[in-house]
Amino acid sequence: VREFDLIRRLQERFPAPPAPPGSDCVLGIGDDAAVFEVPPGQQLVACTDTLAEGVHFPVGTDAAAIGHKALAVNLSDLAAMGATPAWFLLALTLPSAADAWIEAFADGMATLAAAAPIRLAGGDVASGPLNVCVTALGLVASGAALTRSGARVGDLVVVSGRPGAAAHALQTVLGGGEPTPDDRAALDYPRPRLALGLALRGVASACIDVSDGLLADLGHILEASGVGAEVDAAGLPVPTSLAEWPEARRLPLQLAGGDDYELCFTLPARLEPELPGLAARGGVELSVIGRIVDRPGLTTRCADGSLYEPPRGGYEHFGAGPGARP
Amino acid sequence: VREFDLIRRLQERFPAPPAPPGSDCVLGIGDDAAVFEVPPGQQLVACTDTLAEGVHFPVGTDAAAIGHKALAVNLSDLAAMGATPAWFLLALTLPSAADAWIEAFADGMATLAAAAPIRLAGGDVASGPLNVCVTALGLVASGAALTRSGARVGDLVVVSGRPGAAAHALQTVLGGGEPTPDDRAALDYPRPRLALGLALRGVASACIDVSDGLLADLGHILEASGVGAEVDAAGLPVPTSLAEWPEARRLPLQLAGGDDYELCFTLPARLEPELPGLAARGGVELSVIGRIVDRPGLTTRCADGSLYEPPRGGYEHFGAGPGARP
Repeated sequence: VREFDLIRRLQERFPAPPAPPGSDCVLGIGDDAAVFEVPPGQQLVACTDTLAEGVHFPVGTDAAAIGHKALAVNLSDLAAMGATPAWFLLALTLPSAADAWIEAFADGMATLAAAAPIRLAGGDVASGPLNVCVTALGLVASGAALTRSGARVGDLVVVSGRPGAAAHALQTVLGGGEPTPDDRAALDYPRPRLALGLALRGVASACIDVSDGLLADLGHILEASGVGAEVDAAGLPVPTSLAEWPEARRLPLQLAGGDDYELCFTLPARLEPELPGLAARGGVELSVIGRIVDRPGLTTRCADGSLYEPPRGGYEHFGAGPGARP
Repeated sequence: VREFDLIRRLQERFPAPPAPPGSDCVLGIGDDAAVFEVPPGQQLVACTDTLAEGVHFPVGTDAAAIGHKALAVNLSDLAAMGATPAWFLLALTLPSAADAWIEAFADGMATLAAAAPIRLAGGDVASGPLNVCVTALGLVASGAALTRSGARVGDLVVVSGRPGAAAHALQTVLGGGEPTPDDRAALDYPRPRLALGLALRGVASACIDVSDGLLADLGHILEASGVGAEVDAAGLPVPTSLAEWPEARRLPLQLAGGDDYELCFTLPARLEPELPGLAARGGVELSVIGRIVDRPGLTTRCADGSLYEPPRGGYEHFGAGPGARP
């Protein structure tokens, strides 16, 4: 398959869903760049995230999962901003252009794109070691974006879902085992919490998506907001596959495992009664796991009240510790 | 160097130049996504292009040149749309985080960013085989973007600069030789024709940047516009290093060599007297090389009037011919 055929083929797999009201993709795939109309009163939200083989997914991961995940991690960033997805660009570097691989990759990406919905508006295809770079563009009412910097003393710390399942799946795969279907889905087909992000606008004081590990990502909120937090690990719901594990073994996966793409946000305490409604609108369980405090730093207590000492502070590229990804 | 340090360090190398009037980067590096204000009456122009080692630049290319070129190829796409550069996102995949390499890379990219000017607004850093993915965002007055589809019968075909020098440099490098400084600069430090792109708004009927080869890229205009063209190769100015070459040897480099990032555009014939002014405003020489015709297809004549038969139709990833890049 030749380069331009490949771009056209991808284009066919991405039928255009309706654009957000007032917005428009004036010019899509097939020119030097795409052209968009941003509606008055809206701001543009833009993020880019790359997946590299052997780093963000194990070698041998299904092409459909790679297609899904490359888009999902970017949609997760839009969700964390409270943005409505609008358009995305795909820069795909491939060692070869095997038809079956491309079909599966496009299927995985197109299925998520249709569900979001978000429209493929352009991109680039080249040969080289497998690397998938997606840039997602979203829209948010001017001034309404959720940021990392708004956490205030007394706010509750809330997390969606049950972080730890993706890290457990990865640990299992790297150990030569077969993850449970739920864990495998968490790793390969993370679900960006777009509905929750939209529901949190005007409600959450700060928000981030959990990509590096819950404590590490909460740490980014604390740093940006100039506050500290006390986390009670007992408040964190346990993924099914870890239910029988002793706390000391499962907490590192729950607190420091990356790749879950849940949202961690802070909420003024007076809004706690809103949580069930937010969970319903977000389609995901929400758990209060701690509270924002004045004293800088992050303190985490185990169920017995003892202090939790993290074995690592989240995944770091370049010189990571024993918890490094492959 | 750790991941977040690396992002911060890059950020420091990109002091924020003034934003285009009425626009604003409301939220830059350090959150889940960047947030932008698009001024009323303006449309957003977005493109993404990846550079992979051994494909888009030879192994061993200077880090500064890689930093420059990764941004330049995207600015060239904005130029071809007649857009004003505004912001860019950088997704950098690196095998290791060697300080000297990163400094040089950032220097090369920051120097061009300051000249454009365009502002770094976000990105992503990961470990893996070297891959640089830039997404550039620009602004254009609503409806004023230059596209590929507006060429009309009778229009002149015009090209900027002297395409062929970059391909000659690459051919020389791959043959183990040392290119002339001019050719080397064309390959490693292509100059995006931003001023020319702006000058062409409301004047050119169609425009594209020359990345795959002059005839291949002109072919994209013809296809999008539903027209044909007759090109007179004698009208094409010859790069200095090829001045003494016989036409049969140099034409493949001039007509099918990629990587020059000049602009090829079509111009209503009545506007031919504007060409010297456009060249002055664009800061680059402009040459009329042909004319748009009704009959589909692209006919190219050599100086003696004989038909030129291209050895290939431009660079193709995946299964390219004898002119393939490394």
